[in-house]
Amino acid sequence: MPVFLDNAATSFPKPETVYLAMDAALREVGVAPGRGGYRQSLAAARIVYEARSALARFFGVSDSSRLIFTHSATESINIAVNGLLKPGDHVVSTRVEHNALLRPLHLAASRGVEVTYVPSDRFGVVSEREIERAMRPGTRLVALAHCSNVTGAVQPIEAIARVARQNGAVFLVDAAQSAGFFPIEAERTGIDLLAAPGHKGLYGPPGTGVLTIAEGLNLEPLLVGGTGGSASSPEQPDQLPERLESGTINTPAIAGLKAGVEFVLTTGIDVIRAKEELLVNQLLEGLRATPHVEVYGPLEGARGAAVSFNAAGHDPAALSFLLDSDYDISVRAGLHCAPDTHRSIGTYPTGTVRVSPGFFNTEADIDFFLKALHEIAARG
Amino acid sequence: MPVFLDNAATSFPKPETVYLAMDAALREVGVAPGRGGYRQSLAAARIVYEARSALARFFGVSDSSRLIFTHSATESINIAVNGLLKPGDHVVSTRVEHNALLRPLHLAASRGVEVTYVPSDRFGVVSEREIERAMRPGTRLVALAHCSNVTGAVQPIEAIARVARQNGAVFLVDAAQSAGFFPIEAERTGIDLLAAPGHKGLYGPPGTGVLTIAEGLNLEPLLVGGTGGSASSPEQPDQLPERLESGTINTPAIAGLKAGVEFVLTTGIDVIRAKEELLVNQLLEGLRATPHVEVYGPLEGARGAAVSFNAAGHDPAALSFLLDSDYDISVRAGLHCAPDTHRSIGTYPTGTVRVSPGFFNTEADIDFFLKALHEIAARG
Repeated sequence: MPVFLDNAATSFPKPETVYLAMDAALREVGVAPGRGGYRQSLAAARIVYEARSALARFFGVSDSSRLIFTHSATESINIAVNGLLKPGDHVVSTRVEHNALLRPLHLAASRGVEVTYVPSDRFGVVSEREIERAMRPGTRLVALAHCSNVTGAVQPIEAIARVARQNGAVFLVDAAQSAGFFPIEAERTGIDLLAAPGHKGLYGPPGTGVLTIAEGLNLEPLLVGGTGGSASSPEQPDQLPERLESGTINTPAIAGLKAGVEFVLTTGIDVIRAKEELLVNQLLEGLRATPHVEVYGPLEGARGAAVSFNAAGHDPAALSFLLDSDYDISVRAGLHCAPDTHRSIGTYPTGTVRVSPGFFNTEADIDFFLKALHEIAARG
Repeated sequence: MPVFLDNAATSFPKPETVYLAMDAALREVGVAPGRGGYRQSLAAARIVYEARSALARFFGVSDSSRLIFTHSATESINIAVNGLLKPGDHVVSTRVEHNALLRPLHLAASRGVEVTYVPSDRFGVVSEREIERAMRPGTRLVALAHCSNVTGAVQPIEAIARVARQNGAVFLVDAAQSAGFFPIEAERTGIDLLAAPGHKGLYGPPGTGVLTIAEGLNLEPLLVGGTGGSASSPEQPDQLPERLESGTINTPAIAGLKAGVEFVLTTGIDVIRAKEELLVNQLLEGLRATPHVEVYGPLEGARGAAVSFNAAGHDPAALSFLLDSDYDISVRAGLHCAPDTHRSIGTYPTGTVRVSPGFFNTEADIDFFLKALHEIAARG
């Protein structure tokens, strides 16, 4: 039996309802919303509207038109960073970011934006005091990931949101590892821009993502093109969501995402997190009891479901290869697209082995993984 | 029985193999290629590699790494226009473009690019001589749609490619309405940048698109972020396709696109076009025989499968509403995201009724549509 422990890359499997919703939308609706006035197109528009409303409610956004559909959290972050920043702007971020945020910030820096990267502690956690210290008069943006895909470290976003607000800065949160795991209330918390993938903790298919945009914030579009309505002008329309959603909307994938969010709501986000925390704690205990294994990230308290470790004398890539080839266990080795995080926790450049359980894993899966690790370690 | 005649928006239905390939990839592979070294991830990488190779062959591109996957033709065009042009560059385009090209060019113009829009004849066809007349020393780009989504007009891209090449300009073709309908050999023809959607004539799902990039042409990325490999640098990697493919690749949708292209190859592109031409000719004859109906675009010779018309005394939106409500026929009314085309053919601002048959339509569908149109017209 294959054991999938790479849910931080994408949740797998998806709930059965997600497969069925996508297949039904492809077979029965198939077409694009707002591109025709006929019934099938209206059915597509209804799916997209309902999904948009459900996700806006899920993330505590009162005006659903301020939640746009993208194709990935990466696209969401690019739209946010590129659409907000101008040359001369100052940004505060951290030294534990994923390339999905780091590279857009680096690109902005090449165009005259200045970025201050705040260090984390050795568990990968950033303090709001460090953020505050990096703020300058007129800092435009504070941008960071809620939860690390390497260490599972969780940042104190409520406190950081207050720092951002008190300094008049926009607050962008990359929720790639937290959406669907921790409840996130964007408006209540003071998150102005929330980027989330659809295919991880929201249990939707790949090719989906969202970006929420606080009232009063206007982003320049990254992509422009056909928007169905407002066709007569060469200018991109001003109104949301059309302004930031060009081209044919991916109705079947959004139908799948809607089913995924409904799965999270029906199951209960607390139930999902409690199950994953049980598995993560089992994993952390087992790893800490394994000789010559070093575990990174928080060992107790609030954390995400990604657990990184190294076993002395074993290259992470070789170890994950053996787990796959000899035990059919899928984990991920290397830098996990987050090089600075490894520089921060001392695992650059070889990285770590990352184990990320999901809701559909069992305690038996974790036992099997730990047993396999012991056997490989015993081989020397 | 519903009759779907809006294939210019998206082809519907898809071949059964497309539904099955997507469902299988979601259920059995599900994960992202290149994000892990384990078997499932390698299976995903294989799907994407095979799809990339098949599409590169399909479009006559010898190095498949120079074909990138996007989420739509709109994204492909944005990547091409934004990635190539710099302030001061001159572009030649036409007055019959879709907003997918027009709006990126308009945005580029707001950043210091100069664009000359060449007129078409009254059928929507642009002459290579008009393109040539608009060229200047150092013109950087010639950009146009191969085939109109409003009139079905086909542009002489072979002759225009020669003009572009002789003048040292890059040639960008928007193949939204022609990919999978006319054979396109990018390298042989001299198309440097070919943008195509996956969900129209290639019979793939929404959320897919491709861009081919000629040897020697370097595009600045529009989106940056995680690329799986080359994770250690904050710089986007230089090599293709990674440079232009950030974030989790949509493996299930690409599996569907691969099945769609295989359907086109197995059926034969000539067989598909012959079938659609039969239906288009039946439609054109029937429309021309209908009193008070004006048909736009080419009436004979090579043309695409989109047919636009107006019936005197009938607003296009009202007419398409009646076709839907009383006959369950899906057509599209309005500007079809191509306002300048309507200005060129004299149908701005109300637009036209557009009928676009696809491979899965039958002669009976066209008869039924023509009969419905006669009945509605007879009501006055």
